Amino acid sequence: MNLEVNRNKAVVLVSGGLDSATCLALAKDAGYSCYALSFDYGQRASSELKAAGQLTSSIEVIEHKTVKLDMGQIGGSALTDKDIAIPEQKSTGIPITYVPARNTVFLSYALAWAEVVAADAIYIGVNFLDYSGYPDCRPAYIKAFQNVINLATKTGVEGGIINLVTPLIDLTKGEIIKAGVRLGVEYSLTVSCYQATEGGLACGRCDSCRFRKQGFQEARVEDPTRYSDKST
Amino acid sequence: MNLEVNRNKAVVLVSGGLDSATCLALAKDAGYSCYALSFDYGQRASSELKAAGQLTSSIEVIEHKTVKLDMGQIGGSALTDKDIAIPEQKSTGIPITYVPARNTVFLSYALAWAEVVAADAIYIGVNFLDYSGYPDCRPAYIKAFQNVINLATKTGVEGGIINLVTPLIDLTKGEIIKAGVRLGVEYSLTVSCYQATEGGLACGRCDSCRFRKQGFQEARVEDPTRYSDKST
Repeated sequence: MNLEVNRNKAVVLVSGGLDSATCLALAKDAGYSCYALSFDYGQRASSELKAAGQLTSSIEVIEHKTVKLDMGQIGGSALTDKDIAIPEQKSTGIPITYVPARNTVFLSYALAWAEVVAADAIYIGVNFLDYSGYPDCRPAYIKAFQNVINLATKTGVEGGIINLVTPLIDLTKGEIIKAGVRLGVEYSLTVSCYQATEGGLACGRCDSCRFRKQGFQEARVEDPTRYSDKST
Repeated sequence: MNLEVNRNKAVVLVSGGLDSATCLALAKDAGYSCYALSFDYGQRASSELKAAGQLTSSIEVIEHKTVKLDMGQIGGSALTDKDIAIPEQKSTGIPITYVPARNTVFLSYALAWAEVVAADAIYIGVNFLDYSGYPDCRPAYIKAFQNVINLATKTGVEGGIINLVTPLIDLTKGEIIKAGVRLGVEYSLTVSCYQATEGGLACGRCDSCRFRKQGFQEARVEDPTRYSDKST
């Protein structure tokens, strides 16, 4: 019963949101044993992290680590700095919710863990279409980070490869939701809102809520999101 | 007296060792206003961090931040895992003191801070010749990370550049020391040893001590390192 031998390992970034939940389900569906990685980086919505914990109970993983990051000390974003308000109108350009170098920091840790557990893939649920204007969600960025992976690691030096996999990169929110529903993802467990309440209620008005709402409409799937009374 | 206007800003990685001390002096000498960045990542030698603090008192910086990293949780290195012994013989290949993805994690934070303070350079004291076999000290790696910088950031999207500067990359340890002495670096304040005592005494036997000793010999500069009695 040596089933583990032929199964590949993947480190999967799991924020607790809709995209990363789908990403985890896709990694499992591709046959990977998954190592889920979450970050506590001073984001406003701590209910997002609770959601990550519930998700990795609902979708089986080998291990789930939550790494505490000191990004609030660096500052510069509405997501980590409580003095900057979350915008509720559609913004142009790169929004104030952009956290400087966030995906680069996340992927660096994922890379470190991938080396330690000898994973051959890193899954990240970045999305280019609904990317909200973040530069570190673009395909060119992912390609550049893959090159860093190849050159940075003992694995790379020894001829191995750690693939950076972005299964959602060119899907619409509706397509992502359809893929997840097919794989049985419980979206009621996920939290996407930038300013969700402690109990996980969504505001319904921030960029992230707007994309999510439109996604369920597009997928013709009933929206299981729990909105706060104030939202419309 | 608007002297600040024309001065450029650099984020400089300062570990408290000989290389990063020289790197900081070189960044200052190049006219940069420096933002020193250190990491508390569970490294054995906490005296290294004390040294970083003393250095940034000795070489004037705008600000010195020490970011706490949760790398011990990721594991996999003799520098962060107390159950793995520091080797005292010269090793072949990539040594066990290699911390998976360490420079990638460090540079990610440096990049985040560089965006926030609008720096146009990041200085890192990596060295290829004496690089101890670490893959993330090679020129090809630095080039790959520069590409990530260009694509990851709001600065990059808006047409700006944050240059990744590696002034020590092809210098011998002796050349590094000569450059530092010329700029008045107080090497007695620096700690390079992988297993220095709380008080900053060096073992004299680990890879890092060996390179440092040879460097002072090569530079014909008196070695100001405080060795523990046990070292030869």
